[in-house]
Amino acid sequence: MALPRTINVGLIGAGRIGTAHAEIIARRVPGASLVAVADPRPGVAETLGSSLGARGVLAPEEIFGADDIDAVVIAASSDAHCELVVGAAAAGKAIFCEKPMSMTLSDAERAVAAARDADVQLQVGFNRRFAADFVAAHAAIVAGAIGTPQLMRSVTRDPGLANPGGVPPWTVFTQTLIHDFDALLWLNPGASPVEVYATADALVAPEYKESGLLDTAVVVITFDNGARAVAEASFSASYGYDVRAEVFGSGGMVTAGTTARTTMSLFDSTGQHVETARGDVALFVDAYTGEFVEFTDAVREGRAPSVTGEDARRALGVALACIESAKANAPVKVTP
Amino acid sequence: MALPRTINVGLIGAGRIGTAHAEIIARRVPGASLVAVADPRPGVAETLGSSLGARGVLAPEEIFGADDIDAVVIAASSDAHCELVVGAAAAGKAIFCEKPMSMTLSDAERAVAAARDADVQLQVGFNRRFAADFVAAHAAIVAGAIGTPQLMRSVTRDPGLANPGGVPPWTVFTQTLIHDFDALLWLNPGASPVEVYATADALVAPEYKESGLLDTAVVVITFDNGARAVAEASFSASYGYDVRAEVFGSGGMVTAGTTARTTMSLFDSTGQHVETARGDVALFVDAYTGEFVEFTDAVREGRAPSVTGEDARRALGVALACIESAKANAPVKVTP
Amino acid sequence: MALPRTINVGLIGAGRIGTAHAEIIARRVPGASLVAVADPRPGVAETLGSSLGARGVLAPEEIFGADDIDAVVIAASSDAHCELVVGAAAAGKAIFCEKPMSMTLSDAERAVAAARDADVQLQVGFNRRFAADFVAAHAAIVAGAIGTPQLMRSVTRDPGLANPGGVPPWTVFTQTLIHDFDALLWLNPGASPVEVYATADALVAPEYKESGLLDTAVVVITFDNGARAVAEASFSASYGYDVRAEVFGSGGMVTAGTTARTTMSLFDSTGQHVETARGDVALFVDAYTGEFVEFTDAVREGRAPSVTGEDARRALGVALACIESAKANAPVKVTP
Amino acid sequence: MALPRTINVGLIGAGRIGTAHAEIIARRVPGASLVAVADPRPGVAETLGSSLGARGVLAPEEIFGADDIDAVVIAASSDAHCELVVGAAAAGKAIFCEKPMSMTLSDAERAVAAARDADVQLQVGFNRRFAADFVAAHAAIVAGAIGTPQLMRSVTRDPGLANPGGVPPWTVFTQTLIHDFDALLWLNPGASPVEVYATADALVAPEYKESGLLDTAVVVITFDNGARAVAEASFSASYGYDVRAEVFGSGGMVTAGTTARTTMSLFDSTGQHVETARGDVALFVDAYTGEFVEFTDAVREGRAPSVTGEDARRALGVALACIESAKANAPVKVTP
Repeated sequence: MALPRTINVGLIGAGRIGTAHAEIIARRVPGASLVAVADPRPGVAETLGSSLGARGVLAPEEIFGADDIDAVVIAASSDAHCELVVGAAAAGKAIFCEKPMSMTLSDAERAVAAARDADVQLQVGFNRRFAADFVAAHAAIVAGAIGTPQLMRSVTRDPGLANPGGVPPWTVFTQTLIHDFDALLWLNPGASPVEVYATADALVAPEYKESGLLDTAVVVITFDNGARAVAEASFSASYGYDVRAEVFGSGGMVTAGTTARTTMSLFDSTGQHVETARGDVALFVDAYTGEFVEFTDAVREGRAPSVTGEDARRALGVALACIESAKANAPVKVTP
Repeated sequence: MALPRTINVGLIGAGRIGTAHAEIIARRVPGASLVAVADPRPGVAETLGSSLGARGVLAPEEIFGADDIDAVVIAASSDAHCELVVGAAAAGKAIFCEKPMSMTLSDAERAVAAARDADVQLQVGFNRRFAADFVAAHAAIVAGAIGTPQLMRSVTRDPGLANPGGVPPWTVFTQTLIHDFDALLWLNPGASPVEVYATADALVAPEYKESGLLDTAVVVITFDNGARAVAEASFSASYGYDVRAEVFGSGGMVTAGTTARTTMSLFDSTGQHVETARGDVALFVDAYTGEFVEFTDAVREGRAPSVTGEDARRALGVALACIESAKANAPVKVTP
Repeated sequence: MALPRTINVGLIGAGRIGTAHAEIIARRVPGASLVAVADPRPGVAETLGSSLGARGVLAPEEIFGADDIDAVVIAASSDAHCELVVGAAAAGKAIFCEKPMSMTLSDAERAVAAARDADVQLQVGFNRRFAADFVAAHAAIVAGAIGTPQLMRSVTRDPGLANPGGVPPWTVFTQTLIHDFDALLWLNPGASPVEVYATADALVAPEYKESGLLDTAVVVITFDNGARAVAEASFSASYGYDVRAEVFGSGGMVTAGTTARTTMSLFDSTGQHVETARGDVALFVDAYTGEFVEFTDAVREGRAPSVTGEDARRALGVALACIESAKANAPVKVTP
Repeated sequence: MALPRTINVGLIGAGRIGTAHAEIIARRVPGASLVAVADPRPGVAETLGSSLGARGVLAPEEIFGADDIDAVVIAASSDAHCELVVGAAAAGKAIFCEKPMSMTLSDAERAVAAARDADVQLQVGFNRRFAADFVAAHAAIVAGAIGTPQLMRSVTRDPGLANPGGVPPWTVFTQTLIHDFDALLWLNPGASPVEVYATADALVAPEYKESGLLDTAVVVITFDNGARAVAEASFSASYGYDVRAEVFGSGGMVTAGTTARTTMSLFDSTGQHVETARGDVALFVDAYTGEFVEFTDAVREGRAPSVTGEDARRALGVALACIESAKANAPVKVTP
């Protein structure tokens, strides 16, 4: 058991999720070292970095050009992801990119090609694949425990909608449900999505519907093995953060996900009560850790990570078809 | 507390569900007496009836014409339901009709009108409304505990597909999911279905797809209060009988239904194990009892039952729209 | 399938549990008919009986002497049980006796002997043996699924202590925990209790401790197969009625019992909530029904019931040893 | 948010639990650095240390005398704990000591005094206090959510008994149940144990009973607030590692602990199945992490840790009374 080679990480983006990533990389990932944080807002990267033993910089280029950095974690705003992937690949850095990797299929292909041409790892932040219960569900499916998937379900409900006016169009599909699309593709191994039907609405903040907000959505995906999958999202679950999946097949069913914060139950004169998890980081801290362990392990071992840019492209294909379906109010074929 | 007036019941149809009804009426419903059973197959009604203290007859008319019968329970084949409702109404009997009450909207209206004109009770067999957990979910929704429904789900998975060649076309919508449609309409009080998208397939017995079998289906219903509901069905759950519902609203969520046969858990070297319920009667015996208690109470008290022919018409409207949607592979408006 | 012979039942005692028994026998037990109710309080038996189609009488002798009564259900006060069993046996009636069958071992033997000599059935009201989850746990143990029992637990918590001043001495052992003692003996088949250690206190209503109230108790039973069983009771569970069991053995564990009223869960801004069952009859209505089905089946079939007077004697032996142990604050041998 | 001062840790003992501690300290505790590992077996400390960036040494004195070490974690054999605490205190190191801190009350007092006199932190490894569900249960009790504790339960079942011949006498009380004793004392805040009754046996490996093995035990603790607590242990749970607690009080109940490895359920033709956790480190990795976070935080902040040597002394007092009770087969007073 030799000491693992330390992977030096530079983080781009010190927003909410970037901050969570920084802390996890610095504190919970064996053999990873957070070396630098980049954020264009003056002082932000330095503040975060200094608390974790990393330097703060303003521009991604300072990450790309640093000799002491092996790998880049991209947690900037979504529309910058693709360019940052291309830049990091050009610099020869291994790349972890938050979802969505890009907003168009051609950009997805460009990002995948850049990493392939530079021969660097490219992993995408589908954290659900590292949650212990989802991992166990996937393993059971791969082992044949439920036969062929026939009816699938994936749910994402966020704990609140802080700024309904600031939500970019189609966010429910490209940012939220893209997690569910990836999960459903992963949990139906070997099958491909053929068609989607999507319906979405502004039910949480109907006053923002005019300006394009969609905060509630239901999607039906038909796969080429006949399976029908339902993905549903809401931006405002009063009880917290709710991520669950169910896969029913010819031989059984698996369910994964819980809303319970812990296994503690309180019983009193009004009944039994269980606390619910209130945020994605709280619920998924081990999954976030797991995805960075996988990433740094893949870099160290010189192998492809288990979640790739190609996976991001496939999930995006479903999301883009959903946009078309919602616009047309009709089922739409998924671009292969 | 006076002795309740006994309601004398005549049952039409001694098949699987008719037999279950007979035993429940005879043995579990206070103040109900099973007086007669009708079935056209020689000896069948007599055999069932004699075991329960009731006479057996061949023709429904012998039930309609009997002076000692207050109420008729119709458990014949689905396509005979409407005529039997009309016949029973003409005879002045109170009527309990298994679902579906009819196969067309005009027949549904004919049945409703017949009962109304004859001033007799007409209840339809949506048993889920009497299952304790569904009742509790409904009560919570009516009490405002979850705010306005936004995302709904109802699932029916039957334990097996005994005779795939004998399943009439569109059964998955008109016979199976009609339970889910009624449940979803009931759990979204005051709202009306506007549009449905339905997709169905033969995944359990694909060799029967050619001849019209659909054994797996997913339906999305859009309501006029914005709620989206998903109903899904399979004719073959390896683990038994699975009926569940989930209603997510602006203020919370309710879930109802379990697959567990009892609350016993067995832990051994392979983990924790819970037995699953294997049949609808086993899972729902208390719900079946409850619907007949409601029916006989309504007859005794001279009031309308809580589940009416009009409810049957509404659920049928959704089922018929599903047929059109599946044919067209497009969303279809629901006839109001 | 012939019509089952009706067993005509006479009930002695129209108190809380007698009333529940009357309704269950009259309404839920196939092939049972409640013919008469006896209660010494003027009008009480008549009121209950008339609501259920039975006559009301004052004296048990009117039940014993009635030619139209096959079987007697004894739900009078505990200290009258033994004499009533003897009287019913002398009259040649089959006997169902609420627990405890007697307050002394010699009376228990007298009751057993009376029934044996008269060749009539004698069943005792250990209803837990007919609860579906306990039945499943017992079946798993008998099937060897958990190997040899080593650590056992049985819990009874009642929903409240209405009249702390009216509780006879040692009630917690002879009336409450006797259910747990029977359950533990039943769930450890083939083994015998050797020794008990009991500790009890007045924690719910300490102001009644002086006058002998014990409302909280813990008992450890050592069996001759080495198993240690813990039985615990409280007279006041704020959340309702709580009956559970756990048996851990060399090859696994079974757990039975739940506090949930239904499988409905409500999720809101304060977490997940489950209603709890509030009373023994609500939680155990199917178990109560089951014990009377067993009783009338045994009478009809001329066989011994599955829960006998001998079982009552064994459970009482444990309860009496508990009294001695609590008095002595020391472990005490159980009289074989 | 300044960079936390790194606490440099030296570990004594590279056995099973020492190895787990080393990995957690090195990889999961922010602001902790594993600097050295000591183990008397040649090469063992070096192998473990080199995999985690720490040096390996043979003697504890090399830890005590090292200027670059702030804090010592003692995971040596139990009978060496006290001397090592005294030695570490003399060297001015902060101390984390695995349970049990000592085998006698006088040694416990000696250890506490040594740390107090040297003015160094002394924390003991009662990891259950850092498990999220136990923390939530404790918080609910402290907040008054269940009123005054009346009936308590704590269970420890280990997944197997690898070497029954190598188990020191009374291990079930001093090593295993000491966790439960601490948990019960902690969950009954402000109350003190007055008396214990303990019974123990060799049921897992009866062939070792002669030589003193006790692998199964049940203990009843009576507290000065009237609460009765049951602690039970088995050295061999076929289904894995089982740690649970239940506290019932005048106003409600809390339960904590689960055997489930994840929230994934598999349903197939034999029912519902949940994987169980197989080891203490797997089940409690977050709790182990939490206790070291607390320890290094306390060191950094110059404050007392939340679990102290005095807590260890109290739990040991219960364990020693259990030994006397088991020897005497009688309740025994707990030395205050």
